[in-house]
Parts: sequence; structure tokens; C-alpha cells
Amino acid sequence: MTSTEAGPSTALLTDHYELTMLAGALRDGTANRPCVFEVFARRLPDGRRYGVVAGTERLLDAIRDFRFGPAEIDQLARASVVDEATLSWLADYRFTGDVDGYPEGELYFPGSPILTVRASFAEGVVLETLALSILNHDSAIASAAARMVGAANGRRMIEMGSRRTHEEAAVASARAAYLAGFTATSNLEAARRHGIPTTGTCAHAYTLLHDSEAEAFRSQIEALGVGTTLLVDTYDITEGIRTAVEVAGPELGAVRIDSGDVGPLARQAREQLDSLGARNTRIVVSGDLDEYSIAALRAEPVDAYGVGTSLVTGSGAPTAGMVYKLVEVAGRPVAKRSSHKESRGGWKSAVRRHKDTGTALEEVVFQVGDGRQQPELGEHDRVLPIPLLRAGQRADGVPTLEQSRDRLRSALVSVPWEGLKLSHGEPAIPTTFR
Amino acid sequence: MTSTEAGPSTALLTDHYELTMLAGALRDGTANRPCVFEVFARRLPDGRRYGVVAGTERLLDAIRDFRFGPAEIDQLARASVVDEATLSWLADYRFTGDVDGYPEGELYFPGSPILTVRASFAEGVVLETLALSILNHDSAIASAAARMVGAANGRRMIEMGSRRTHEEAAVASARAAYLAGFTATSNLEAARRHGIPTTGTCAHAYTLLHDSEAEAFRSQIEALGVGTTLLVDTYDITEGIRTAVEVAGPELGAVRIDSGDVGPLARQAREQLDSLGARNTRIVVSGDLDEYSIAALRAEPVDAYGVGTSLVTGSGAPTAGMVYKLVEVAGRPVAKRSSHKESRGGWKSAVRRHKDTGTALEEVVFQVGDGRQQPELGEHDRVLPIPLLRAGQRADGVPTLEQSRDRLRSALVSVPWEGLKLSHGEPAIPTTFR
Repeated sequence: MTSTEAGPSTALLTDHYELTMLAGALRDGTANRPCVFEVFARRLPDGRRYGVVAGTERLLDAIRDFRFGPAEIDQLARASVVDEATLSWLADYRFTGDVDGYPEGELYFPGSPILTVRASFAEGVVLETLALSILNHDSAIASAAARMVGAANGRRMIEMGSRRTHEEAAVASARAAYLAGFTATSNLEAARRHGIPTTGTCAHAYTLLHDSEAEAFRSQIEALGVGTTLLVDTYDITEGIRTAVEVAGPELGAVRIDSGDVGPLARQAREQLDSLGARNTRIVVSGDLDEYSIAALRAEPVDAYGVGTSLVTGSGAPTAGMVYKLVEVAGRPVAKRSSHKESRGGWKSAVRRHKDTGTALEEVVFQVGDGRQQPELGEHDRVLPIPLLRAGQRADGVPTLEQSRDRLRSALVSVPWEGLKLSHGEPAIPTTFR
Repeated sequence: MTSTEAGPSTALLTDHYELTMLAGALRDGTANRPCVFEVFARRLPDGRRYGVVAGTERLLDAIRDFRFGPAEIDQLARASVVDEATLSWLADYRFTGDVDGYPEGELYFPGSPILTVRASFAEGVVLETLALSILNHDSAIASAAARMVGAANGRRMIEMGSRRTHEEAAVASARAAYLAGFTATSNLEAARRHGIPTTGTCAHAYTLLHDSEAEAFRSQIEALGVGTTLLVDTYDITEGIRTAVEVAGPELGAVRIDSGDVGPLARQAREQLDSLGARNTRIVVSGDLDEYSIAALRAEPVDAYGVGTSLVTGSGAPTAGMVYKLVEVAGRPVAKRSSHKESRGGWKSAVRRHKDTGTALEEVVFQVGDGRQQPELGEHDRVLPIPLLRAGQRADGVPTLEQSRDRLRSALVSVPWEGLKLSHGEPAIPTTFR
């Protein structure tokens, strides 16, 4: 991103074809037709029971920064992407439309209208790639993270996957993981940008740097206090734990085990720590954990999990597969209809219906517009989309990251227990189209 | 990234523990010990025959921008990550060490010393996350892309996956794909930042916007000329092709088919185009292609492939799994040794040995340092690492993106034919440690 006077620009994080479509539409006069674009997922990743919406707030910021400054216009001119008339239209671009969407932390299912953009064709078409990049990435990570948090059943979760994904995706992943209930991240930029707590102590390199494990531990404790976490598996774990307690005393905060069969190792470590009087010293495990191995460790004396690769790669589903489709032109529903990739035309909204007990029953997706009515709401039912932008300006009440975190927690409580299982299966609730 | 006077800073794209290790080492005096850190992959992704190194040049730029300006120092102080002495050390941070590495476009195998950082512990330890984020991401994408390019067997490949990955990962993915032999990308920022050719014409939205397919095609041709690519599968493909040739004439550049069973559809399209006299109109296919479906289309009359999701997600291997390990301290090899995750200590280099015919035989990884000798080189053998940074400054002869593209092309020619198969198997050549 090149910085302009107005700050960094997101305008070129865009596919070439959006601007050529714009050029054509400006030329033939269709550019101003009022349109509705919708973001939805045709299906959940294979076997997943629910998806978690994430990235919406990042998208609102990115739309605010979607400006074609002199640097962007020069680039497009030099590369002959579009004609002069289009460049001059782009130079004045500000999004002035309305956007509604599922709030972050809300669950989604196949066909849920996750984001609805109402704007002229010209204003809406250029946001396709940016909207999808952000929502597909962040939702994929949050969806995987939510399963891990569920599997951890209340134990602390530390996100430490930055090294296994693109350096900027790492920052967004830390945010999505926190949204989904992770306790902290290793990523320092995520603290600056999103206010997420960071944590971390030591790698094996620190022990190897020193002349002995005892010296490394002593040094770390001098720098960070006895409440720190000592990494005990550089040489021999039993020896490492003995040395750790010798050096730190029984007040040692925690030990971390990063390799081997962590279940039995955690049991051994607990016994050894207890026998050394370090009864309050916690055990942190890390090393290629995913939701399944986290669940398998439920019976073991583990106090916290450090999760890396599987988190930032969406645990097998690195993208959410959402699409951005034109569904309405000048009040008329439109849809592609040549193949299995069919879409449902028309501006839509959705309600989640619940039993009297509060358990979710179904996602009802319905058409919005003149003469169409919203389904009646029961006591526990709720309309899912909220206003995000009005005439291009951020709407009141867009939730904070902490509020989105709470929203997900309570949304998951309402999911039928079948839908919370880690095993492959159908979506937790069906989607009904009215 | 916050912009400082010196430009954007990458310094916080870092894990918390790197700075706490630094703080401890500064306090106990080990921070200045001369160290060697090595980046390598313990294994290739499941069943892959080779990996492709990518991201090195992005990493060199990121190391240049690894500066703790006032904004970064403030953030670390506010979050109480490290003490005052460490903050003041960081404020002066400039990397002054030496870096060698495999050039971009070079193949790598398990244990290949892809990057070697020689610096004080303090200077080297803080680069771990940044180096791994960039190399793991870009190499994962380039490795998948190279298989796709091989499967396409000379046909044009267009990268169009931006929407299915983080918005900045999209730019890096476009670069990695181009390095691996893709022809062009849809991503406009990749053109600005890396000089990669972009392409793109139309989405289904453009046809849906207009009152008829014919009007949409006419509009596109007026804007982009008859050499453009018309998307013919919005309603009915046969009808779409007929309309396309009617509107554009037989000089139409190309048609794109984005859905359905593209093999038979391409055959039908070819016959229809030929019968309409549009013998030079090319056929572009897209829609959830990966290396296997590209290979399966080899016998079909397809002129170009558009590849999205599978490219940006590394086709099942979204991260390269490289690690950054301390291997030498003050001339003494060091290695973790508690578990299966063993590492080989010592500063290393590597030679790729070849038969007289030029076919690669093995990767020989050997120790470097006093009294150790490089293996003798045969006519086709070559030392793999090149100098990248010397005393913190970019070394002469770091290849350009175009040179890296050429390098990969010729490296792949040397791979035994077994190693070029798409099917799962062992690495194309074994790694021998001396």
C-alpha cells in the first residue's frame, strides 16, 4: 500500500477486471444503476457445522481507505488498465452506499447473507476483491479457532502461528483467534493494531545460547521473574523440570513442553512438579496442536495450549469460500443460471429462529424490498444483519472486538449440541429460503 | 505497519518472545555471542517431490525496514513487553550481520539450508518470525504454483486467487505464482509493487447488470476491443458463444468458461467457435482448478487457465513448515536433542550434485567453518547458497524476479522425471548430510 495524504490506500488490492467492468459501465451508462451485491458462502468447509463471521470491522476500515490517490492513478495509467474517463472517476471515488451485514462473531451457514452492499454498480463492483479477501481470510481463521476454543473447554489458548502465514495475515489471524476466544497472541503488531494481549517467553535458542540449561533458566528468571514460563524440553524434560524448579523455586509460573507425545509428558510433568512442591506451576503445551489433539488432551493436566500452524491455516480450511454476487439491479432480482453454481437473486436478509429453550432451529433467509415482509419473530429469534455503513459513513453500534467476542460466546451456547461436535457432519441448523 | 520517517516499519511483525529473549540476553551478556541461525524444512508437505524457494527478496526488504521508530518503541513501552535498556537497544537496531541463502526459484528438499543468518544472538534472534512468515508463505505458494505450471505444459496460466486469501497475502501470492511461471495475475497491487503483468475482463455481474447478454458483450467490446475475453456462461453457454461471435465477429479474442464440467464444455466450445469461423478465438477456463484438474484438461482444447483458490492456499499445503533454528554459538555447533524434532547443529552449506547428463542426483549438506572443506564439484554440480546480505547491506548479484523465474525453469529441467510426477511420493532427490 502506498501512503497518500489521506493515509494508506487499499484501492489497488483489487482485481483488474473490476476496473475494466467499471470502464465499460461508465461508457454505456449502466454504471449508475442501483445495485445490491451480496456476500455469502455456498457451503461450509467439508464437514464443518458452522462458520464464524470475522473481518467486518477490518473491511469497514479498508473501504474508508479505498481511495485512488495520485500514486494509484499513475500506476493504472502507466499500466493502461483503464481509459482517462475512468481514471478521473476513480480519482473522486468515495463509497457512498449502504452496507448491512452479520456482525462479527455471529455464526453463519450456507446461504446466509453475510454482507449486503447497496450502491450504484460502479461503487459496489470495485469492492468485490477487497471484501472477499478480508472476510474469507478472517472468517476461515475464526471458524477454526472457535472449534479449538470449544475443544479446550475453558483452558487458556495462546495464538502463536505468525511464522506459518504471511506476515500481515498473521496480524489478522491473531485478531480472528482472539475474537473466537483465544486468550492472547504472540504477535506484537496485533497488540498495537487491535489491542490484543500478547505473551511469550522463550525459544529453544535461548537455552542453546547459554552454557547450560540452568544458566539459561537463571537468566530468564532474572529478566522476567519467577512467574515466567520455562521451556523444559531442549535436552531432557525430566532433567529440565528438575533444573527449572531448582533455579526458580516452587513459585515457578509455568513450564512449556513443545515436542513429543504431550499427553503422557504432561502427566509426568505434573507428577514431577507436584513432587517438587511446585503444585501451582502450570503446564503449557504446544507443537502442532489442532482442535482434535486439544480435545484429546482434555483429561490431561494441561493448563494452556499454544496453537500455531493449524490456527493460521484454518485447520484444513484456509479460506471460507465466500462469494460476492450481484443479486439485484434497479429493484429487479438477477442471478446466474447456467450451472450448479446457481445463486438466488434479490436483496435478502435473515432471521435465526430458536426454540423456547433458546436452542437455534433454523436460519431463515428472506427477500427484502417493497411489499415483502420479515418473518414474525419469536421471543428468542433475532434478525441477523445490522447496519454497517449508511451513505458511506460508519453506522452507529458497530460492535467492538470485545463485544464480538461476547457475541460468539453466546451464539455458540444456542447451537444444538450435535452442531458443536468436532466430527464431520451437516451444518448445525438448516437454512430455509423464503 | 506504522510509517516512520524512514518509511514503513516491519519491526512489530514479530513474536513477543523474541524481545523477551533479547532482554534476558542483554542483561546477562550473552546477547553479543556470535551466532548462526538456519532456516530449513524438516520435511516437504505430504507427498510433494520438491519445494520452491520464494520470498527471499521480500525478506531482504523487510529486514531493511526492521526499525524500531518512536511509534514502535512507545507501543512496546506501553505494553510493558521489555525493559528500558532493551527499548534503547531496539531504538538503535540495524541488522549488521551476513545472510546467505538459496536464491529464489531454487528447489529445496528436507534439510536444505535455505537461509543462514550470521550475527550476534541479539541481532539474529529478532528476525525469526519475520523470516519465517515470508519464506513459509511465499515458498508454499510458489511450490504449488510450479506443479500447476508443469501440469499446464506451456499453456498460459492466470493467477486470480486474491479474493480467497488475506489482502496482502494476495499480493505476495501473485508474485510467487509469477516466479513459478504463471503468465499474469488479476491483482493490481502486484503490478505496482512487483511489476507483474495483470489481466482480467469481466465477471458475471457485468452480464447481469445489462438488459441482455448481447448488450453486455457489445458494451465490453466497445470498451476493450474485440480482442477481449467474453464470459459466456452466465445463462447458457451455447447461446452465449453464439451471441459472442455475433457481436464481436470471428476476430473475438477469447471466451471464458467459469463453471460446469470444463473439459467437455471446452470441446463443445471449440467446435462451435470453429463452425462459426472464430478459429483463432481462444478458450480460457477457470473455476476451482488445481494441478490435477489442469493436468486432466491437457488433451482438451484449452488455451489458458485461470487459477484461484488452490493457488493461494498452496493446494493443500498452505505453509511450507520451515523453521529458524540456532545452530552455532561462538563457533560451537548447538542443537536441541530431546525428541523426534532433532536438528543438526553447525553452520552449513549445500551442493547439488548431478549426473553427467545434467540430471540432479542428490543434495549434499555439509558443515562450513574452520578446516572443513566443500565437496568437490563436478561439471554440472553447483553450490546452492548465494550471499544475500554482507554487514547488513544487500550483496551484489541478488537475482531479479525475472532471473528467479528463469532459475526455476532450469532447475526443474534437472529434476529426474520421477520427481516431476504430480502423484504423492518421496522427494525427487535425497539429502545427504556430511
